[in-house]
Amino acid sequence: MNKYIRLAVFGGALAFVHPNNPLQTAVCFSIIGYVTTITLIPRLSEPFKGIGLKGKDMSKPPPVRELPESMGIVSAVTYLFIMFSLIPFIFFKYLVSFSALSNDQSMLNTYTTQYESTKSQLFPHNKLAEYLSAVLCLQSTTLLGLFDDLFDIRWRHKFFLPAVASLPLLIVYYVDFSVTSVVIPSFLTDLKGGEQALEFLNFFIRLGNHVVTSVTGLSFSSLPTDYVIPENSPKLLDLGIFYYFYMSAVSIFSPNSINILAGINGLEVGQSVVLAIIFLTNDFCYLFSSNVSQAAYDSHLFSVIFIIPFIGVSLGLLQYNWFPARVFVGDTYCYFSGMVFAIVGILGHFSKTLLIFLLPQILNFIYSAPQIFGVIPCPRHRLPRFNLKDGLMYPSFGELKKQGPVPRLLLNILEKLKLIKIERGNEGQIVKFSNMTIINLFLVWFGPMREDSLCLLILGVQLLVGFSMIAVRHTVGPWLFGYDNLSWGVK
Amino acid sequence: MNKYIRLAVFGGALAFVHPNNPLQTAVCFSIIGYVTTITLIPRLSEPFKGIGLKGKDMSKPPPVRELPESMGIVSAVTYLFIMFSLIPFIFFKYLVSFSALSNDQSMLNTYTTQYESTKSQLFPHNKLAEYLSAVLCLQSTTLLGLFDDLFDIRWRHKFFLPAVASLPLLIVYYVDFSVTSVVIPSFLTDLKGGEQALEFLNFFIRLGNHVVTSVTGLSFSSLPTDYVIPENSPKLLDLGIFYYFYMSAVSIFSPNSINILAGINGLEVGQSVVLAIIFLTNDFCYLFSSNVSQAAYDSHLFSVIFIIPFIGVSLGLLQYNWFPARVFVGDTYCYFSGMVFAIVGILGHFSKTLLIFLLPQILNFIYSAPQIFGVIPCPRHRLPRFNLKDGLMYPSFGELKKQGPVPRLLLNILEKLKLIKIERGNEGQIVKFSNMTIINLFLVWFGPMREDSLCLLILGVQLLVGFSMIAVRHTVGPWLFGYDNLSWGVK
Repeated sequence: MNKYIRLAVFGGALAFVHPNNPLQTAVCFSIIGYVTTITLIPRLSEPFKGIGLKGKDMSKPPPVRELPESMGIVSAVTYLFIMFSLIPFIFFKYLVSFSALSNDQSMLNTYTTQYESTKSQLFPHNKLAEYLSAVLCLQSTTLLGLFDDLFDIRWRHKFFLPAVASLPLLIVYYVDFSVTSVVIPSFLTDLKGGEQALEFLNFFIRLGNHVVTSVTGLSFSSLPTDYVIPENSPKLLDLGIFYYFYMSAVSIFSPNSINILAGINGLEVGQSVVLAIIFLTNDFCYLFSSNVSQAAYDSHLFSVIFIIPFIGVSLGLLQYNWFPARVFVGDTYCYFSGMVFAIVGILGHFSKTLLIFLLPQILNFIYSAPQIFGVIPCPRHRLPRFNLKDGLMYPSFGELKKQGPVPRLLLNILEKLKLIKIERGNEGQIVKFSNMTIINLFLVWFGPMREDSLCLLILGVQLLVGFSMIAVRHTVGPWLFGYDNLSWGVK
Repeated sequence: MNKYIRLAVFGGALAFVHPNNPLQTAVCFSIIGYVTTITLIPRLSEPFKGIGLKGKDMSKPPPVRELPESMGIVSAVTYLFIMFSLIPFIFFKYLVSFSALSNDQSMLNTYTTQYESTKSQLFPHNKLAEYLSAVLCLQSTTLLGLFDDLFDIRWRHKFFLPAVASLPLLIVYYVDFSVTSVVIPSFLTDLKGGEQALEFLNFFIRLGNHVVTSVTGLSFSSLPTDYVIPENSPKLLDLGIFYYFYMSAVSIFSPNSINILAGINGLEVGQSVVLAIIFLTNDFCYLFSSNVSQAAYDSHLFSVIFIIPFIGVSLGLLQYNWFPARVFVGDTYCYFSGMVFAIVGILGHFSKTLLIFLLPQILNFIYSAPQIFGVIPCPRHRLPRFNLKDGLMYPSFGELKKQGPVPRLLLNILEKLKLIKIERGNEGQIVKFSNMTIINLFLVWFGPMREDSLCLLILGVQLLVGFSMIAVRHTVGPWLFGYDNLSWGVK
């Protein structure tokens, strides 16, 4: 984009910033984020390579080019600055109501502390604390990702760090919402023994919570201890402290799940943009529904305000990372983007819906698990193989040297299910097997293809799955759970 | 420190963490921060050098050693993790009062939203927002410092960045305190024409504020427009929006002022530790005073909670940065430490006191200004010169090539005031002049000395100045301003 067009777009977006309309302002800032990102990335490419942040693109014909690595930092930092600048606009109506107050003569006959305290009471400090904790968490994640890109931190050192980064988030959750009960689908409790199993589970959860409460003095339970579930209401299981463990797990899983579905041009950013679109669609279901509760409206507005600028900075990055890539995005971007989704899921109160949107990532993780945890040998890289002759990507293979019974059995089962391709030796023994990532799986299923077609295929499937999940969430979900928090869902 | 001793100290500190005593907990976490820092620094030295974060120590006999640079990142990140972990302890009493509530049967006959809302109302969300905005601001500053160390950002690009980093802080200030009036010492208004000058100034300030309010719709003024200052009360000047500019300026000045008083082993961290001790002493004046207001108590408790862990992580760094240095601290540390002071000054409501504590840094800045702004030629480095023969530090000199009238006049005046050393040519013309930093000035005044003596001398002077300023603040201050916010001060 030409320099002057960029300037014009930037200025135009700035002109449409509207203090009383957070949604419109978020869109304007998103455009500003896009323009900033595409302006900064080419300028920072050489400096990044200069400090050693560079990598080789293995899936291109020679000469092998060295591309700047970790360019996602640019998107992440731009995003953080945008979120800083958004604060006054989001809270503008409250800020202004104070100004109005200060001109109200009846309130201000003397310069009292009363005025100050009224002003302070009216302001939604809890919303501000939510917002700040979210930005803080994202910034910690960016910092962590940056260190990982710079120093290549070991897995065992970095595994729990996102949980520490999400600590402020969990504290705000504890203070502000503290809903720790989950709804149990009625078809489960209607099963024979379902009620008993629930009681049994409940007993152990309460025991665990009791221990935690007596040690820390804090009660994590959102239901009073002798709360009796009313007749005809959905069955609740109060997880207490375990719900916080669950949210920590989400904040660890979400960034890592994006980080492992990676390796071809455009896929890390592409899947993030697709996820963002899915989230946004779900949010709009609530925002444009006629009689949704204020609480649900607020939390989905929160989600939209975080997602829209994210799309802007991501599209800027995608433009440079799309086939043939001119930059790599680095771990920073994967962590950052995964944490954006974890945060809106947690603070937007749809951390369970979040997981169904991450289904392709979860399936990829489960599919990868045997290699990640060493049940089946895992080569250093599991990227698909680039074939110089036809310029297409082929599945890459791992070698099975030791023929233990467990891996052999597992591989044979997966082959029967058509989830793997196996090359056998003369005596029928397994020699090679396609690496277990959904990228390779798609190549096994649909045959070799060019890098960008492969990426588009995966993104298309993800988009389809996502939209199906939104439909499932609001049709089958209410039927299973006996209620929906979205009024236009099936009752 | 031996590995097992470190472990023991770490465990011991952890054991003394007391949820109902934030002060004691801060001390424990400070010790944990110290142990973590001295453990991490030696392990991270090689990785830091590996990615190019290294520099040569110019003030040592050969062979010139390459030391890891930017090791202050370790302190800063450790500090941030500590501040994250401190949150539940600081807000523990509020968190627990909810637990107590949840067992109160009279309140909880049904599972109502009332419980949730009571809980949410009792919690000091504004304090949490303050705390989070402070940590967020420090983290942004650390990130910015890291980028500066990695990429050597140009001055004009980085100058305003601390102001953006402090944006969340200013918004919290706007919402929570919004005190924008300053007290005018009565001796000034008692001067002939003093009242008129104040009126005149007031007019322009109000005009400026009026323009800002009509453009943004926000009122930055903390006094009602027709507020009449009562008789016998101190004269107030309501700065309005200009007070926010002032706080932005503090957040820009404070980090940079520490960054320019640097260049010999131990000085960056040393002055930060000395400043922290001065701040702490001032805070304790309030905390241990018998009848101080709750508001003053709270804001100085806030300051102490931020300063104590800072001392821990800084002492760990000082141990490795003290003469002969094994690591350099980098811009990251200077920015980070300067921002700690800016934050406690702003949120602790003593941003004016903050400036008198930074007096040595301010004097150094003013003294340096002619060289920084190019009135007098400035060589690339202004560090004192190391003399290999006697191992002592000597003042370094700048060369005056063009003999313009302004620099010549200025240098002559400074020489008369004994604030500079000048070397003249055969015809009496100025050839060289000692570089204008207080480090060089001390060498001019007290003669050559070893690097550590020089550092100790500067730190000693700073400590003395600081303690004098505390005394002045609480004795001469009240006399000048007609009141003190500390009850044991002179009335």
